[in-house]
Amino acid sequence: MNAADIPSLAARLCAGERRALARAITLAESTRADHRERAAELLALLMPHTGRSIRIGISGVPGVGKSTFIEALGNHIIDAGHRVAALAVDPSSAISGGSILGDKTRMEVLSRRPEAFIRPSPSGGTLGGVARRTREAILLCEAGGFDVILVETVGVGQSETAVADMTDMFVLLLVPSGGDELQGIKRGIVELADFVIVNKADGELLPIAQRTAGEYANALHLLRRRDDDWRVPVQTCSAIAGTGVAEAWNRMQEYCGRAREAGRLASRRANQARAWMWADATDALTAMLRSDAAASARVGTLEAEVTAGRLAPSVAARELLELFLRRR
Amino acid sequence: MNAADIPSLAARLCAGERRALARAITLAESTRADHRERAAELLALLMPHTGRSIRIGISGVPGVGKSTFIEALGNHIIDAGHRVAALAVDPSSAISGGSILGDKTRMEVLSRRPEAFIRPSPSGGTLGGVARRTREAILLCEAGGFDVILVETVGVGQSETAVADMTDMFVLLLVPSGGDELQGIKRGIVELADFVIVNKADGELLPIAQRTAGEYANALHLLRRRDDDWRVPVQTCSAIAGTGVAEAWNRMQEYCGRAREAGRLASRRANQARAWMWADATDALTAMLRSDAAASARVGTLEAEVTAGRLAPSVAARELLELFLRRR
Repeated sequence: MNAADIPSLAARLCAGERRALARAITLAESTRADHRERAAELLALLMPHTGRSIRIGISGVPGVGKSTFIEALGNHIIDAGHRVAALAVDPSSAISGGSILGDKTRMEVLSRRPEAFIRPSPSGGTLGGVARRTREAILLCEAGGFDVILVETVGVGQSETAVADMTDMFVLLLVPSGGDELQGIKRGIVELADFVIVNKADGELLPIAQRTAGEYANALHLLRRRDDDWRVPVQTCSAIAGTGVAEAWNRMQEYCGRAREAGRLASRRANQARAWMWADATDALTAMLRSDAAASARVGTLEAEVTAGRLAPSVAARELLELFLRRR
Repeated sequence: MNAADIPSLAARLCAGERRALARAITLAESTRADHRERAAELLALLMPHTGRSIRIGISGVPGVGKSTFIEALGNHIIDAGHRVAALAVDPSSAISGGSILGDKTRMEVLSRRPEAFIRPSPSGGTLGGVARRTREAILLCEAGGFDVILVETVGVGQSETAVADMTDMFVLLLVPSGGDELQGIKRGIVELADFVIVNKADGELLPIAQRTAGEYANALHLLRRRDDDWRVPVQTCSAIAGTGVAEAWNRMQEYCGRAREAGRLASRRANQARAWMWADATDALTAMLRSDAAASARVGTLEAEVTAGRLAPSVAARELLELFLRRR
């Protein structure tokens, strides 16, 4: 893609052309230097059209029914007059080859609606890289007119923190069962949640789901609140039966509305943006150090000396850095 | 301190002179550029005399009796013919002003023995900085002839990971009680442990301590083992009554002995050293970026544009990095 094509791509994206959006995200996902350059130009043009959405992170262990929930929630939100983009952060896709949201058959209805845009997780690279690309995809979807952005992630601690750091609200999905140990959910994750939903509250699981919701409601009261005016709600739902989905959407709107009124939404996004800028710059600098070091024979020697215990690591680090700065 | 004094300091340190060791650690703790230079020279001279110790990390929430345990364990180990250094990692000491191990009155006997060397946590700076300085202190103590190094830390997730990453074995101290929720221990910390000890197993707490030990033994069986040939032992002890201390030391020796025979100790230390080198270099580079940015008016503008949502953070990061590299 040439620099000359960027203004046209931006215009088509803003006009709501799906193919332009898909192409823009592909561009933003590329790690090629010239693509990064083009993506930066594109984002510069599109920034005035971003920010006007509700950004919701959705997490839960595999098997909790995230895709089914997003299918049900997304359809409900579209019926209420919105346009919904569903993105994902799955750092494991680099290894597994697969990726969440990749299997659109689980979102049969949603994936065919013109008001929906579903994009699987970018694959490959570090969590930092995957997170950066998803953050850019959020901005691109907003410029494309999607006013509700759902960002799905799997139950791995760090990716959940990354998603909480790029959204306005973090929703944790649970399955009906005992304590969080049994669900493999780390304590820190529950503490990230602005809203907890126990899915699969249907059939014989219904009473267990209700008990689970009660237990979590009690447990959450013991935790320090993230926001003074928000007591983290816990509710049940059945994405398959469609029960509790409207209620969940109401709560999401309520949370985001209150946060907006209190000025918390703006300050949360400002802090996220600042942290993102620094994280990106630091990541890029670290990557330069690593790739520079890979090209240097001396670094191999330093590593060998350090692992053999003949050279203090902090002393080797000084030389590593000097080598890097001298070569630039 | 002049460069000319370094060989003499190294010689006195190796000869077992306590004041030389204390002075060397003070030098290594300094962040002044010329002191860092001298510390690097000192470490270069001392590296051949390092590595011949057992490095044990000891963690537990405040109130678990870490100081009392280290007093009892340290005295027992010295009676068995060793020389013991007790160090600490407490990143909060920057804020609180105080520091763990700072109060030697809790280690009345140990602190007076010539075979013991007690050093409070370096204060100030980031966890990365505190960890680096403690790692260097470990090497200096080894060169000073201490063959058992105990590194104490408080119950904060990241500092425990840092200590596990600089020691051969990570020991978690618990108080008699219910599940880990009640003790405020994050799940990830229990998973770091190579050995779990329930302290305060005396008086009316004895049956509760025994029950706690049983519960943790059960829970640990569910976790994946870090080492194939090591089932994490859980035992009770009373540091005050002196019961279980000899048993604990036997288990530490057993673990380290097995790890040495299996070659795991050498590979763990080699990996730690390599990771330490890279972390140090990355930290230093990030610090340079931050301090360079603080001196640049343009960075303030970038931050303002980013937080206002007018500039994409990833685009701002590119400029931030270009500015940095151009100025070097």
